[in-house]
Amino acid sequence: MNKQQLIENIKRKRSFLCVGLDTDIKKIPVHLLTEEDPIFAFNKAIIDATADLCIAYKPNLAFYESLGVKGWIAFEKTVKYLREVYPDQFIIADAKRGDIGNTSEMYARSFFDELDIDSVTVAPYMGEDSVKPFLIYPDKWVILLALTSNKGSQDFQLTADANGERLFEKVLRKSQEWADDQQMMYVVGATQGQAFEEIRRIVPDHFLLVPGVGAQGGSLAEVCKYGMNPSCGLIVNSSRAILYADNSERFSEAAREEAANVQQEMEQELKRFTI
Amino acid sequence: MNKQQLIENIKRKRSFLCVGLDTDIKKIPVHLLTEEDPIFAFNKAIIDATADLCIAYKPNLAFYESLGVKGWIAFEKTVKYLREVYPDQFIIADAKRGDIGNTSEMYARSFFDELDIDSVTVAPYMGEDSVKPFLIYPDKWVILLALTSNKGSQDFQLTADANGERLFEKVLRKSQEWADDQQMMYVVGATQGQAFEEIRRIVPDHFLLVPGVGAQGGSLAEVCKYGMNPSCGLIVNSSRAILYADNSERFSEAAREEAANVQQEMEQELKRFTI
Repeated sequence: MNKQQLIENIKRKRSFLCVGLDTDIKKIPVHLLTEEDPIFAFNKAIIDATADLCIAYKPNLAFYESLGVKGWIAFEKTVKYLREVYPDQFIIADAKRGDIGNTSEMYARSFFDELDIDSVTVAPYMGEDSVKPFLIYPDKWVILLALTSNKGSQDFQLTADANGERLFEKVLRKSQEWADDQQMMYVVGATQGQAFEEIRRIVPDHFLLVPGVGAQGGSLAEVCKYGMNPSCGLIVNSSRAILYADNSERFSEAAREEAANVQQEMEQELKRFTI
Repeated sequence: MNKQQLIENIKRKRSFLCVGLDTDIKKIPVHLLTEEDPIFAFNKAIIDATADLCIAYKPNLAFYESLGVKGWIAFEKTVKYLREVYPDQFIIADAKRGDIGNTSEMYARSFFDELDIDSVTVAPYMGEDSVKPFLIYPDKWVILLALTSNKGSQDFQLTADANGERLFEKVLRKSQEWADDQQMMYVVGATQGQAFEEIRRIVPDHFLLVPGVGAQGGSLAEVCKYGMNPSCGLIVNSSRAILYADNSERFSEAAREEAANVQQEMEQELKRFTI
């Protein structure tokens, strides 16, 4: 999916919600455990209940890998289902990969070639040649970690160099030499508040993937105030608050209600801030 | 496996070689392609041919993930085979993971609980709470990226802060607050030469996992000269040079010869530098 298509989807659906598929076998409703593939059954129900309210889905690879082969099968089935039934959804493999060139090539092949996923989250620590193999696929995206939502983001990401440039700013600046806003996005945690203003000075046009609204405590209004640009420029993720809104047989209805609440708030923000 | 056991293995085998299982379906001998599981067949042959010459195996997750479910099955079979037939081998899941706490927990569960792997490589960008979930398992290890072997290591890892401390040094120092040398190792690329001296000043006792000898151009002699400590303190990885030493039906013999050459060189280095 290219940037223009993504913007069109946001306008049409009046939403920039991404539903994070952090599907944990220990948290899904017990009645699903008798299904042949409980993880996929849960994901399918969540997707069917929310697809008209969101523009992206973000399966978090850790949750699938932790189940071994079974988890990998559920992940692939989920991606295939999205591709077939909801082809306008932007799929993010939340994998936070990043390795030497020949290894990153293998990851890129896996996500983009084999699975036709739109984007993958990548960690910047290993630099240019760990990121570039993901950039040879047209209309596929790297979503680079910049300033994350967790407490540990303060350990290294905020370290300033001799000129006062902090590591996350250096990542934003340097990575613009590798790709532009048609192929690169950045992860910025919703808990980072006013840092969005500083980030927008460096990357005014890029899309930002924003986790941390909901369970992690970030505020959507604040993210929009400081982070939105005229073509929205935000994909805001919510995982646990939607997935586990209810633990009974009506879990998917509850998930829909939660997603609808977020979508309505997003619609208001889009009216306020975009042209 | 604890540190003392690892050191015993190194002494007994006079080797600190790790064979990297970067198994690429496109590079293995063609006669294996008729096997039911060519990747596992290749790994099994390589392991049987080299196990007495090395102390560790390092499957690189990307190579397995790129094959989807089939690859994941081959990965699990390889780990299980090692555990059953060569229980004294230290297994490294080269995954370079690192995510917010609840996600890192899932990865830790996957590698340590489900698969009983000894260690996992972790990227430090997201800080303390992305690393700590891996540290709650006794005798299991985090191998944290410090100074990697690739060209892109210069992009961020060498950036100095206002006090002149470079990012990789900050990672080495800060992470010692999270765990000691009984649970933490560091990745330092063999191409980094004299930087090993500076690294040893910060982490004199820790084991270092050293990729980059062989195909990537690092020198074993130089790594030992600057990086070895009295209890060895090095696990040196070779992947492609061993795996793909020969592409015919005698591939495993050729792999053994290559591994034996490295082991002999290591034996000499151990005599020179350790007590």
